[in-house]
Amino acid sequence: MKVLVTGAGGYIGSVLVGVLGEKGVVAGRPIQALAVADRHLDDLPDGVEPIAGDLGSDAVRTAIADFAPDVTFHLAAVPGGAAEADYDSGKRVNLDAALGLFETLAGMAPGREAPPVVVYASTVAVYGTSLPELVTPATPLRPPITYGAHKLACEILLADFSRRKVLDARSLRLPGIVARPRAPSGLVSAFMSDILHALAAGESFTCPVGPNSTAWWMSARRCAENLVHAAGMDLRSADPARAWPLPVLRLTMAEVVQTLSRIYGADRERLVRYAPQPGVEAVFGRFPKLDDSASRALGLRDDGSAEALVRRALGQPAE
Amino acid sequence: MKVLVTGAGGYIGSVLVGVLGEKGVVAGRPIQALAVADRHLDDLPDGVEPIAGDLGSDAVRTAIADFAPDVTFHLAAVPGGAAEADYDSGKRVNLDAALGLFETLAGMAPGREAPPVVVYASTVAVYGTSLPELVTPATPLRPPITYGAHKLACEILLADFSRRKVLDARSLRLPGIVARPRAPSGLVSAFMSDILHALAAGESFTCPVGPNSTAWWMSARRCAENLVHAAGMDLRSADPARAWPLPVLRLTMAEVVQTLSRIYGADRERLVRYAPQPGVEAVFGRFPKLDDSASRALGLRDDGSAEALVRRALGQPAE
Repeated sequence: MKVLVTGAGGYIGSVLVGVLGEKGVVAGRPIQALAVADRHLDDLPDGVEPIAGDLGSDAVRTAIADFAPDVTFHLAAVPGGAAEADYDSGKRVNLDAALGLFETLAGMAPGREAPPVVVYASTVAVYGTSLPELVTPATPLRPPITYGAHKLACEILLADFSRRKVLDARSLRLPGIVARPRAPSGLVSAFMSDILHALAAGESFTCPVGPNSTAWWMSARRCAENLVHAAGMDLRSADPARAWPLPVLRLTMAEVVQTLSRIYGADRERLVRYAPQPGVEAVFGRFPKLDDSASRALGLRDDGSAEALVRRALGQPAE
Repeated sequence: MKVLVTGAGGYIGSVLVGVLGEKGVVAGRPIQALAVADRHLDDLPDGVEPIAGDLGSDAVRTAIADFAPDVTFHLAAVPGGAAEADYDSGKRVNLDAALGLFETLAGMAPGREAPPVVVYASTVAVYGTSLPELVTPATPLRPPITYGAHKLACEILLADFSRRKVLDARSLRLPGIVARPRAPSGLVSAFMSDILHALAAGESFTCPVGPNSTAWWMSARRCAENLVHAAGMDLRSADPARAWPLPVLRLTMAEVVQTLSRIYGADRERLVRYAPQPGVEAVFGRFPKLDDSASRALGLRDDGSAEALVRRALGQPAE
């Protein structure tokens, strides 16, 4: 089983490469070769084949075609805030390079026993901001940012490649994934990670959403485990859209802060000052309930509890 | 008001150019200049500026940017059957050239009073073939052909351009439009036009769907009138997806044949031999009811009656 990870230098990508190395198995078969593609690659584990360069370049496309992966995890993306600020850059990576990758992989389908598997990191930003109390598979999709629009377009294109049996795709809509490093990431949702790091370190934190704001949470470790699981899901009777939200923990910011206080000390609650910004709260503070029963039926999982989420997100051992 | 029609050499495009010439008004303002873009242009009415060439070419893009339309009707497309047979050609025109056009137009937005208006000819092929008894705005979209997937992707991209206020787009999902000339069109739905021509001419016809099959019908004339109307719709409080099905007449094939018999003579029914093809009937023979109330509220209209549809489709005067 030859496995490719794009965006392997990114936060989720690097955690995924670690999980793949530990497990050594994808879709029930041992990993024989693992290649990773990104512009900036360093500290690669032994035995991993690097494909350094821009995903949209002919050189990288050729290298991917030469490697001929059986399973591809496509994570490379310009994140939401950055794509909103720079349309051309977001379009080039999130739409053009993604579709180019899908076409390169689809071109390998003829002559194979089964079409190449693609696990696509989509986003809950496909849903929109005017949502009903319960989001279901029938909720109309109204992406409120260009990043979400391009990810939704890619979901649709991937479903079409799967229908034509030249790819075997599964799109997972990722919620806020924590805890990203505290570097500029271009993500509006970065505060969800920053508050974990700050309170764990005993630092004060100004929170751009209120205590009763609700969001969908998942640790990077659980996200990576779900991506690996997704590669082996049996989709013979699945919805032809082949896109599912990851199961989530829906938590208020107050619940997250209380959980941090339980783990790191009661003083943590006093370190938080709430200064809600309407723009941030509209997009990342009003997440409704999510009917993720179809995702759970496929074996995808949330972190189990707020405490398990925080411990996993911050690399703390479970109690 | 400067108006551009792409795909003006096609069937709906040529009818639209005729309607625009008659009305002389779009979105409440007189047409000062009308340009049309297509690869094959001939028999153009006086005063129409031709832009001949491939929509994806730099030359045509530059000509469109120079013309700087206030309203663009984007009809150019590789039709469904042809796009299904030739992925590259469909993708180049239906996705790449469309998005290139939208970006060219969006690039004109800065410095204008209002962003350029785009009326986009989408398709009911975005819905899919496993539909509930009543299709509503909440029905999940599952395009069953690549043509429909690319049109849906364009709807989503246009909604995003509108959200960013660099375009003012409205996508209309066109049903089967009749009566196209009896030339090879690349459309699987061509039989819907062919049966009208054949029975009007007193020729026998082998119908690839059964008498009780149901489809959504509209004459090209009414379609063109709807496209012109759409350019002036007030969308300030509209669904941000900005995509609506055209209101349709849902007719069985038997009803269409009966209507032809009423107009052209009772012998017409005997000219039809039904030889249903499962593949054609699955896509074009099982259209459910359509909740088009949102479209009607915006002033879009069907043909009124089966007889008016047939007369308008075949250029017969109304009774």
